[in-house]
Amino acid sequence: MGVDPAPRPASGTTEPAARAVELADAARSGDRHALARLLTAIENRTPVAEAALRRLYPLAGRAHLVGITGPPGAGKSTLVAALIAEVRAASRTVAVVAVDPSSPITGGAILGDRVRMQAYATDRDVFIRSMAARGHAGGLASTTGAACAVLDAVGFDLILVETVGTGQSEVEVASSADTTVVLETPEMGDEVQAIKAGLLEVADLVVVNKGDRPGAQRTAAQLRAMLVAAPAVGADPSDADRPRPKRPEVLVTTAATGEGVPELLAALDRHRGAVGREGADGPPPAARLARAEAQVRAILADRIADRLRDADLTADATATIRAVAEHELDPFTAADRLLAAIGREVGS
Amino acid sequence: MGVDPAPRPASGTTEPAARAVELADAARSGDRHALARLLTAIENRTPVAEAALRRLYPLAGRAHLVGITGPPGAGKSTLVAALIAEVRAASRTVAVVAVDPSSPITGGAILGDRVRMQAYATDRDVFIRSMAARGHAGGLASTTGAACAVLDAVGFDLILVETVGTGQSEVEVASSADTTVVLETPEMGDEVQAIKAGLLEVADLVVVNKGDRPGAQRTAAQLRAMLVAAPAVGADPSDADRPRPKRPEVLVTTAATGEGVPELLAALDRHRGAVGREGADGPPPAARLARAEAQVRAILADRIADRLRDADLTADATATIRAVAEHELDPFTAADRLLAAIGREVGS
Repeated sequence: MGVDPAPRPASGTTEPAARAVELADAARSGDRHALARLLTAIENRTPVAEAALRRLYPLAGRAHLVGITGPPGAGKSTLVAALIAEVRAASRTVAVVAVDPSSPITGGAILGDRVRMQAYATDRDVFIRSMAARGHAGGLASTTGAACAVLDAVGFDLILVETVGTGQSEVEVASSADTTVVLETPEMGDEVQAIKAGLLEVADLVVVNKGDRPGAQRTAAQLRAMLVAAPAVGADPSDADRPRPKRPEVLVTTAATGEGVPELLAALDRHRGAVGREGADGPPPAARLARAEAQVRAILADRIADRLRDADLTADATATIRAVAEHELDPFTAADRLLAAIGREVGS
Repeated sequence: MGVDPAPRPASGTTEPAARAVELADAARSGDRHALARLLTAIENRTPVAEAALRRLYPLAGRAHLVGITGPPGAGKSTLVAALIAEVRAASRTVAVVAVDPSSPITGGAILGDRVRMQAYATDRDVFIRSMAARGHAGGLASTTGAACAVLDAVGFDLILVETVGTGQSEVEVASSADTTVVLETPEMGDEVQAIKAGLLEVADLVVVNKGDRPGAQRTAAQLRAMLVAAPAVGADPSDADRPRPKRPEVLVTTAATGEGVPELLAALDRHRGAVGREGADGPPPAARLARAEAQVRAILADRIADRLRDADLTADATATIRAVAEHELDPFTAADRLLAAIGREVGS
């Protein structure tokens, strides 16, 4: 049995596969234009993207993936720009995936601070890419994960994934990196304080940015106190024999002047070393497993959506959804009906 | 063929079904305590929730669902409080579902303005509920959709779904209501302006809140200009014979004083009337179809996750995910393998 991709025109035809091999190999050999086209294919979920990923995925797994998240206005883009400068000073290569939440439909607004990064337009060891979150929410994890795998496979040392830390899917994306950095600002109202508590749960490193403002050191001290009071991140009692991740370190930076940024890069490297040791003699680190699972699940959801659009199922699925919208059928019965139809099709 | 729920212990056993009928009927007859317990069951995705929803879903479809979204600090909770006062003055019943983005893991922080609503603690025609977004991102749509169906079935006239409009999944939740209200504040930086553009695409009504601040009227004028320049919302050329939704109306409110709130309620009622006419002599309105589809898809994703956790599949799925995490297998091949396994199981 198994799944035969041939009958679906969306994959398995020779042309996209050949084109994918061409693009993947060009990207591997350093062609940045090919890399950019590959990422566009991933964003648009074309058959070329799938074929290229199948080729590149086995070559990935060496880069350090760092998620950077925090509320709007915390200075994420400025900090990313400062980190790029620091990383380049050490002659390491860096790629940035900026997940753009500005539009759920068309995507694509350019955030102001991105302009600063144009300083690296001619530096081929820096690659910056905005990714729009198109389609369903799960698509964000799968698109970003695929983009990271490609950037990893073509050889970038460090990959920074920048997201706004207010939506759950954006937080999931950031927290499936090897190292998750949560940004905070010194002055925050009550509502944002509440958001902060949730973000802290995913943090490996907490950075109080805008450190030159009054209150920065006090905010850092408050955060350290909160983190001592809270249970250690990842402290799952059912999993007591795994080495425990440490409580997140709290750093203060002023991204606009670069102050504290060398210390942040050093902390990232330390965390990477710790995670690497954790994974060396046993199962892959939890973040890598979570990332793999999120990717597989998202692809599975896409596959099922594809099946539902198949000619045999479309009319049935549409009628089923309409019956739910008219409250003639409950959504559980509808889901079970569609699942049975998919099972008949996949099983045949 | 079909799906036989019996072998899965998570559903189909007599006890949850009996308990669900009891809770559902009590909630229908006005027992608010039973209603609250039902919503907790939905939040925790228990078998009781599924059985109760199967019973209540056919009774839903009469309430006006209003999504209220906007950036943090726009005054959503204050506006919701002001709307409740206005709705109660007209002797109509109202329920609020506040989607709480504060924690992707534990959920549950209480936003400051929620306190104002405690004024209605003894008014049984007002029901306020925070829902945490647990589990995967798609879970937000399914949990909120199910909560709305229950509140609808037990007879609330108006259901307000309040979300923060920065994450895609939260915007999806708000925009699958019958009427979507997007809040804006008079003073906004560049980054938030970018977010605004995306939010506007889902708006049926745009409200500039904090109307007593300087710049409110200017912001409203700018928004009206933007909306005239942009194509009409929902203008899908492939669907040209459906009546076109109008460009969103822009209103100015000062939620803290109640100014403009009667006009907002009147605008909500007008929009509802327009949508109702649209649905009366043809297919259900697009928002209702989108809501039904989101619910069915989320349940389908849950069902598939359940299948993957089934005894026969667990070991295989875990090994497959691990192989992906170790870059020995690409995630597409992994997804196809799991899909084939699900198909064999569902088809048998």
